[in-house]
Amino acid sequence: MSHNSFGHLFRVTTFGESHGPALGCVIDGCPPGLEISEAVIQADLDRRRPGQSRFTTQRREPDAVRILSGTFAEGDAPARTTGTPIALMIENTDQRSKDYGDIKDKYRPGHADFTYDAKYGIRDYRGGGRSSARETAARVAAGAVARRVIPQVQVRGALVQMGPHRIDRSRWDWDEVARNPFFCPDPVAARSWEGYLDGIRKAGSSVGAVVEVVADGVPAGWGAPIYAKLDGEIAAAFMSINAVKGVEIGDGFAAAELSGESNADEIRQGPNGHPIFGSNHAGGLLGGISTGQAIVARFAVKPTSSILTPRATVDRRGDEVEILTKGRHDPCVGIRAVPVGEAMMACVLADAFLRHRGQVGDGRAWPFQAG
Amino acid sequence: MSHNSFGHLFRVTTFGESHGPALGCVIDGCPPGLEISEAVIQADLDRRRPGQSRFTTQRREPDAVRILSGTFAEGDAPARTTGTPIALMIENTDQRSKDYGDIKDKYRPGHADFTYDAKYGIRDYRGGGRSSARETAARVAAGAVARRVIPQVQVRGALVQMGPHRIDRSRWDWDEVARNPFFCPDPVAARSWEGYLDGIRKAGSSVGAVVEVVADGVPAGWGAPIYAKLDGEIAAAFMSINAVKGVEIGDGFAAAELSGESNADEIRQGPNGHPIFGSNHAGGLLGGISTGQAIVARFAVKPTSSILTPRATVDRRGDEVEILTKGRHDPCVGIRAVPVGEAMMACVLADAFLRHRGQVGDGRAWPFQAG
Amino acid sequence: MSHNSFGHLFRVTTFGESHGPALGCVIDGCPPGLEISEAVIQADLDRRRPGQSRFTTQRREPDAVRILSGTFAEGDAPARTTGTPIALMIENTDQRSKDYGDIKDKYRPGHADFTYDAKYGIRDYRGGGRSSARETAARVAAGAVARRVIPQVQVRGALVQMGPHRIDRSRWDWDEVARNPFFCPDPVAARSWEGYLDGIRKAGSSVGAVVEVVADGVPAGWGAPIYAKLDGEIAAAFMSINAVKGVEIGDGFAAAELSGESNADEIRQGPNGHPIFGSNHAGGLLGGISTGQAIVARFAVKPTSSILTPRATVDRRGDEVEILTKGRHDPCVGIRAVPVGEAMMACVLADAFLRHRGQVGDGRAWPFQAG
Amino acid sequence: MSHNSFGHLFRVTTFGESHGPALGCVIDGCPPGLEISEAVIQADLDRRRPGQSRFTTQRREPDAVRILSGTFAEGDAPARTTGTPIALMIENTDQRSKDYGDIKDKYRPGHADFTYDAKYGIRDYRGGGRSSARETAARVAAGAVARRVIPQVQVRGALVQMGPHRIDRSRWDWDEVARNPFFCPDPVAARSWEGYLDGIRKAGSSVGAVVEVVADGVPAGWGAPIYAKLDGEIAAAFMSINAVKGVEIGDGFAAAELSGESNADEIRQGPNGHPIFGSNHAGGLLGGISTGQAIVARFAVKPTSSILTPRATVDRRGDEVEILTKGRHDPCVGIRAVPVGEAMMACVLADAFLRHRGQVGDGRAWPFQAG
Repeated sequence: MSHNSFGHLFRVTTFGESHGPALGCVIDGCPPGLEISEAVIQADLDRRRPGQSRFTTQRREPDAVRILSGTFAEGDAPARTTGTPIALMIENTDQRSKDYGDIKDKYRPGHADFTYDAKYGIRDYRGGGRSSARETAARVAAGAVARRVIPQVQVRGALVQMGPHRIDRSRWDWDEVARNPFFCPDPVAARSWEGYLDGIRKAGSSVGAVVEVVADGVPAGWGAPIYAKLDGEIAAAFMSINAVKGVEIGDGFAAAELSGESNADEIRQGPNGHPIFGSNHAGGLLGGISTGQAIVARFAVKPTSSILTPRATVDRRGDEVEILTKGRHDPCVGIRAVPVGEAMMACVLADAFLRHRGQVGDGRAWPFQAG
Repeated sequence: MSHNSFGHLFRVTTFGESHGPALGCVIDGCPPGLEISEAVIQADLDRRRPGQSRFTTQRREPDAVRILSGTFAEGDAPARTTGTPIALMIENTDQRSKDYGDIKDKYRPGHADFTYDAKYGIRDYRGGGRSSARETAARVAAGAVARRVIPQVQVRGALVQMGPHRIDRSRWDWDEVARNPFFCPDPVAARSWEGYLDGIRKAGSSVGAVVEVVADGVPAGWGAPIYAKLDGEIAAAFMSINAVKGVEIGDGFAAAELSGESNADEIRQGPNGHPIFGSNHAGGLLGGISTGQAIVARFAVKPTSSILTPRATVDRRGDEVEILTKGRHDPCVGIRAVPVGEAMMACVLADAFLRHRGQVGDGRAWPFQAG
Repeated sequence: MSHNSFGHLFRVTTFGESHGPALGCVIDGCPPGLEISEAVIQADLDRRRPGQSRFTTQRREPDAVRILSGTFAEGDAPARTTGTPIALMIENTDQRSKDYGDIKDKYRPGHADFTYDAKYGIRDYRGGGRSSARETAARVAAGAVARRVIPQVQVRGALVQMGPHRIDRSRWDWDEVARNPFFCPDPVAARSWEGYLDGIRKAGSSVGAVVEVVADGVPAGWGAPIYAKLDGEIAAAFMSINAVKGVEIGDGFAAAELSGESNADEIRQGPNGHPIFGSNHAGGLLGGISTGQAIVARFAVKPTSSILTPRATVDRRGDEVEILTKGRHDPCVGIRAVPVGEAMMACVLADAFLRHRGQVGDGRAWPFQAG
Repeated sequence: MSHNSFGHLFRVTTFGESHGPALGCVIDGCPPGLEISEAVIQADLDRRRPGQSRFTTQRREPDAVRILSGTFAEGDAPARTTGTPIALMIENTDQRSKDYGDIKDKYRPGHADFTYDAKYGIRDYRGGGRSSARETAARVAAGAVARRVIPQVQVRGALVQMGPHRIDRSRWDWDEVARNPFFCPDPVAARSWEGYLDGIRKAGSSVGAVVEVVADGVPAGWGAPIYAKLDGEIAAAFMSINAVKGVEIGDGFAAAELSGESNADEIRQGPNGHPIFGSNHAGGLLGGISTGQAIVARFAVKPTSSILTPRATVDRRGDEVEILTKGRHDPCVGIRAVPVGEAMMACVLADAFLRHRGQVGDGRAWPFQAG
């Protein structure tokens, strides 16, 4: 029922505004005994941090995380989780609120300015307040913890489309993702995107993107039917990321065009008695439960609404005005959404793991029945 | 945390398998004083009922709903909700379980057969058990109640794509939806789909589809930030529908290709002081909160996995076999998903209305600030 | 957030009014593979059923339970749970609504008549509607399922006080509980209560009671800190039973009078390396988590508010009137609360077991650390 | 499902250990527009703060609260809530962890030491870690916010029993509560308790207590039936307070001894058409819903388990040892539980208010029906 929490057994509550004193999260339900340190979390945060290339916002935040609770180090041993809530805090340091002074009474078209004010009758205009993508730093920190809950699972993300430009999937190389400023798995696309995005940025414009997140190592059986389908959990998690307007599992919208025969992921017996699938149109999920294949999901990010190009709007009094947003913004907010998408997937899967263990226990011997 | 419930203040729990004694739902949190009768619910159920044309499963179920609790009629007055849980039951009558005998140990590729068994180690093979789309009758019944909670909102759905064939949006006519067996708003497309789907059906094949659901009349301010975004609630609700693999709000994936300028829904002052938007790329939602425009959402349905064309698979022992599913199936399960999508949207919005009223109260005067 | 659900991983939603068509429940999250039949549930229901002695309401309901979903019998094997929601229904048959005609506009002092009307503005006056203790039949049915989830745990209840008359604990005999109409573990008290309650009944009065529920076999470690303490879960579960106004764990209110030394449950090493406690003031729970001792809890039931003695009240218009309730009522509603208390304890513990398994896993080797 | 959260629409998540860097809470769902400052919260915290008399722990913490998020001050206006999560942090400063060195492997009888270790296999022995009553500072902070949500309601608590010594209710004086170190409403009892507790303290012993919390100003209709009864919400909230083992609403256990006639709170019409009750055995709640009378609830606190008197126990290896706890402890932990009980009641009622408004709306005209 909370507006600022997600997950069930592995439950994350975030707090904080773009220009408030601090942001962070509380992770409730993390199993005990896991080695967690600020350094481990920081490594994930650094992948998302702003100001690392000319293609992301020039706000320079160290985004240094502090663990306030939930771990304990006995003597010289490394700190471990204790099963109690893990609170993580990141102080805000580089807040130039004056940048926002001239837009404080105007609504940016396509921005949550308007709807927050419509709902609450009060507007924290400094950097978008709670609606700022800065909130996602807390999720990335939570995601770093979630990864330790399911060490057998590898969650990786990549930018597969920028504006109208898609990658060539035949060139997909996971190692390439860390080598370019776009988390792009296709080295050729990555190069061409540099020039493209420079143009967008210099024009004071912005552009959308598509992010793909893949989870390898999830065994068959996680997730649950109907209203707790992993598909739904992933979709809600991705939709909670700023500017996301679409989500797909596996073939997604392309599946609508397929026939039943083409869409069938045929099954054969593998060498170790486990099933092997001939394809993965389903994205690793059937009936909301994992098949044992890679889980594949994508989300569409709309272009940043804070742009230097003037647009028509109204102010809080209803008067018609023009607006252009100076501030410091990402020309393609989809780039930094890649580690955020990974973090959300890691959190959803950590939760699914704990829920599955709760309902069914550790001991289910799968796949094939004895005899 | 429940696997078979959705919603928060307006909360629906469904139960029942395809070939069990009955299916139904319990609606918890419905406000008191609303006129509800079996006839009102039946009208919605009849739109989804199978066997109404040659394009849906030939299973013939009356799907007669019975209200078990939650309403009270004082004297001769019509029955009204009392604020207590409303239990609705639909008995199953036309169950031909023998149809499934020859597939009971085999896994249909692309079907939840496999994953349910992987998770639970037990499989109710009769008509897909709990994973059958028959479960959606319970949601349509709940949706009929949800509509009464928000009478100011009109929720309508339509099939906008069948297989690769899309409608022409310039011909969109809501009245047409009731006139063809596809819930298609484009009369020309509807006619051509008849021949197309006949071919699919006779070939023992199946095909996917895309459904669009539109809600008019939602005021600005419903929904909530971050993890309770209406986008996320709608996405999870749609993903819970059988065979859905993708969800979009507003422009969805197409928004990824837009520039910030093109995507901006500019705002002007309307005659009554309310804001007027020049476009609706956002699908009526910004920051997870309604703008006052129409809410527009779509979902992609994959093709039915139960087909007459043989596919390679394994059985419960792991042996490699072929499978073809006789039974009685929808060649395009997306058709009957239209009233289901409407019902899910109605339930999500009824819940959002109650949550908004709880957090903010009835009295918010919007839009423009006094002075 | 639901008003009519309890539990988290083992979650029960009840529905139904005293004089509606049916009542029942949906159990969500029951693990798969458990043998459950209508006969097994019926046995528990029969212990609670009205009309079995002159000391309970003379309403005669067969309370026959029907399983609507959630189990599957393969061939001739007994039915087992499938992991999907288990819906249970009990039809109402002996409804004499006319009994209530003359009180339909008056509020019984001490009854929920008044508050339901104050909240909802509508009143189902037939037999108390949703506020009737008849709703507890659904919980007893759910409790029968919960017992199968934790077969290692034995949950038993007893009436330890009727009106001002307490049992003598030195005569406690669990076998005696089934031999008298009061679920009383003290044969001497049971005999004297017969005459006492006959007097109450004939005087058209009613009387309160105290019920004790004991769970043996719960290992150390179930439950959770702070807001998910087993103490709190049990307290909320007992408070949900009609007419309950007090709950105690272990020594309860008597612990307030103890010194720290007297209240300390000292620990010694048992023969198998497990800890042995010298006493159980804590009622088997410390910090909300089980110690491995018996869990001991009590609840106080106020006297039935429906009595034949006239009381001053008002009607719906606010006019001052007198009321006396004819109908058929329990002179001591605490008696039939015994199996209900057991059922609630069983449900709470089944849930705690699944939650513990989820967060910590099956494999924790306790107690003492290796080395 | 969270272990460290409570409430639904007004939802509080706490974090922090006794000797970690900080403790605090996140309040989710607070309505917008309420004036909240650190000073307002601090005033409530100061009532609970340790070291204020010789009767509470000598740990000296300033308990200075910092608001990290959720409020916004426009220009020179006072800060107001924005509807976003309010994070509150209190840094720990006076941590003498070495005090605990000699008990770090031993289990204090009657303390959660044992059960936390049994559950999690890891033990933060510094000051009790998460099980310390220090966690309650976070709740008192949350309670200060909750009070602003329901300014029409006055929540007050008092110590009504210390060890075996009860107050004389005929001397009840709310003003007296602030004048003695025990929050005792009876000036005569307060004086005699000084000598009594000095004796307990000097003997290295401890003693239990009973706290009563009263809420005035709650209108008829808050709360909800069955599993969301206010009785159950209050009981669970109180049971979450350290060392609480019993909860009563209204007459509580004494109601078990009453006849139906004596327990009936008769109703008459008041001067303004509102009902007036002749008594309040029910403690202001019927069927889980408020009657409009004062809500009256009590909880029993067992004696502190950390005492200077040696007790028999085992250590982590299972060896039998003696233990006595030096540290700095409250001889009667029930004293500081008074503001904590108030805070929990305020939070429960704030939540009930929002839930009621959500389900039923602002506009219910009560009590008596038109006509």
